[in-house]
Amino acid sequence: MTFRVTILGSSSALPTPQRNPTAHVLNVHEQFFLIDCGEGTQGRLQRAGINPLRINAVFISHLHGDHLYGIYGLISTLGLLGRRTPLCIYAPHPFGEILAAHLRYFDTDLCYEVQWHEVDTRKHALLYENKVLEVWSVPLRHRLPTSGYWFREKQPPLNLRKDWVDRYQLGIAQCVAAKRGEDVLLEDGRILQNRDLTYTPYQARSYAYLSDTLYSARAAHRIEGVDLLYHEATFMEQDRVLARRTGHSTARQAAQAAVEAGAGRLLLGHFSSRYSDLMPLLAEAQSLFPATALVEEGRSYEIPLVRNAPE
Amino acid sequence: MTFRVTILGSSSALPTPQRNPTAHVLNVHEQFFLIDCGEGTQGRLQRAGINPLRINAVFISHLHGDHLYGIYGLISTLGLLGRRTPLCIYAPHPFGEILAAHLRYFDTDLCYEVQWHEVDTRKHALLYENKVLEVWSVPLRHRLPTSGYWFREKQPPLNLRKDWVDRYQLGIAQCVAAKRGEDVLLEDGRILQNRDLTYTPYQARSYAYLSDTLYSARAAHRIEGVDLLYHEATFMEQDRVLARRTGHSTARQAAQAAVEAGAGRLLLGHFSSRYSDLMPLLAEAQSLFPATALVEEGRSYEIPLVRNAPE
Repeated sequence: MTFRVTILGSSSALPTPQRNPTAHVLNVHEQFFLIDCGEGTQGRLQRAGINPLRINAVFISHLHGDHLYGIYGLISTLGLLGRRTPLCIYAPHPFGEILAAHLRYFDTDLCYEVQWHEVDTRKHALLYENKVLEVWSVPLRHRLPTSGYWFREKQPPLNLRKDWVDRYQLGIAQCVAAKRGEDVLLEDGRILQNRDLTYTPYQARSYAYLSDTLYSARAAHRIEGVDLLYHEATFMEQDRVLARRTGHSTARQAAQAAVEAGAGRLLLGHFSSRYSDLMPLLAEAQSLFPATALVEEGRSYEIPLVRNAPE
Repeated sequence: MTFRVTILGSSSALPTPQRNPTAHVLNVHEQFFLIDCGEGTQGRLQRAGINPLRINAVFISHLHGDHLYGIYGLISTLGLLGRRTPLCIYAPHPFGEILAAHLRYFDTDLCYEVQWHEVDTRKHALLYENKVLEVWSVPLRHRLPTSGYWFREKQPPLNLRKDWVDRYQLGIAQCVAAKRGEDVLLEDGRILQNRDLTYTPYQARSYAYLSDTLYSARAAHRIEGVDLLYHEATFMEQDRVLARRTGHSTARQAAQAAVEAGAGRLLLGHFSSRYSDLMPLLAEAQSLFPATALVEEGRSYEIPLVRNAPE
């Protein structure tokens, strides 16, 4: 039951030899979700050993090229690979117009459908849901409408405590009711509380992607309890004025967001190409939030499964 | 006096881990020209140590994504780098519409101008000229309007034969006339033939880029005497029917084009991703045209300067 994000790109607008334009791919129980799609994403998917046909949906934060220009090549390649299932792209307005203009000139005979779902960047809303996952939009504050995304594993079905089932010799119907979360009525009239009879087999995990954005306490509070937070840290605190003017955060502000969110771990990315040494950015963030790392290009970050034992 | 092409990408439509979408960069006397601009071109320019600001002009063969999708990122990056001189892009219709649509949504505040020059893909015409170089279009036969490009170094100015200048004690005016290509009248009435008095200091060089295309004898004849020919070889001869149907060439056909053109050397590229081993394509071409190589990703190919001695 994987929950793993792979960093395909983490540069800011100007890519460097070490960092590529932004794209992350999240694997939740072997379902793949692409978050932003900077130029060259398809090639880096290939190098990461991820079959692009396995991408369920794409979530675009905002319509700046360094987060988007890879979508054209990806759309073409999925056609060449013979995709049949529709590709859903969640993105702010006016992505639909951009997509339509693109499809007028290219990929006019695609063998699958590209669907656009407009993300209202002012709303914290449930955008996507399947059996194991929910994806929520998180309004951000950038130079143009921008949304972060919060990927929340769903609570797993309840497990029965085998010792209690045995002790009270519960039948199938009683077990099914208990797994549904109900209390169980015994033949002698006693009631077994569901919380005694069952337990959650593991803790649901979550990953939040907040980029590009000014520091936003409101956004941080919306992802409260997030296990792994990726937050942009384009600048250092000494360049705070520039960060403010360009709609970006400092490393310290990213750490502040992790504190506010009560995050488990923080990954910093989207570094300005002006910093050849990124260790001062790391130090700045760690002084406030020690569980911080500089995101590494091409690396995967797992949120390990924490299993609960029946108490 | 460099004349060198660097291969930034040489895959066919579906990139592989070994080969990226098409882009070549030609350095003629330290002036840089980009030929096609597949996704990721800006990153590979960077890795090749070529400053994208130094690109004089871009030549796009046709409007298939694998030859074009890198142009968006390149345009943005040149803006971030503060380019001031206009960027001229030579491309077939309707590239102007595509560019206009793109600029409506992105890079609305570019600090330089992007100019489009329409290439008439039915004409073999002089498109671009400066002191040292001419660029000619070469009509190709693909699934949509496509042009190859022929980059021809200009004939260098004539050098004077110092022994003749000394022997006849020529004055400045006579020397200038001779360098202009004129015969020289001596005071005693004799005439010195220009061909005796001068020589061409080195042989002008040329590079032709023919991709994507069916085999075309007419295109080959138009680049007669080319020193270095890059010709697409998407397929092997055994897949000739497929090549024909998709508007591509086989390796043998590429070699045939080199023979027809009287080329010096042939580089094969744009290989279908179906061939894991490319040596059979090489063998096929070499059986007809021995001076053939499989183009290597990231490598530069120099056309060495051949200096002439005064006879």
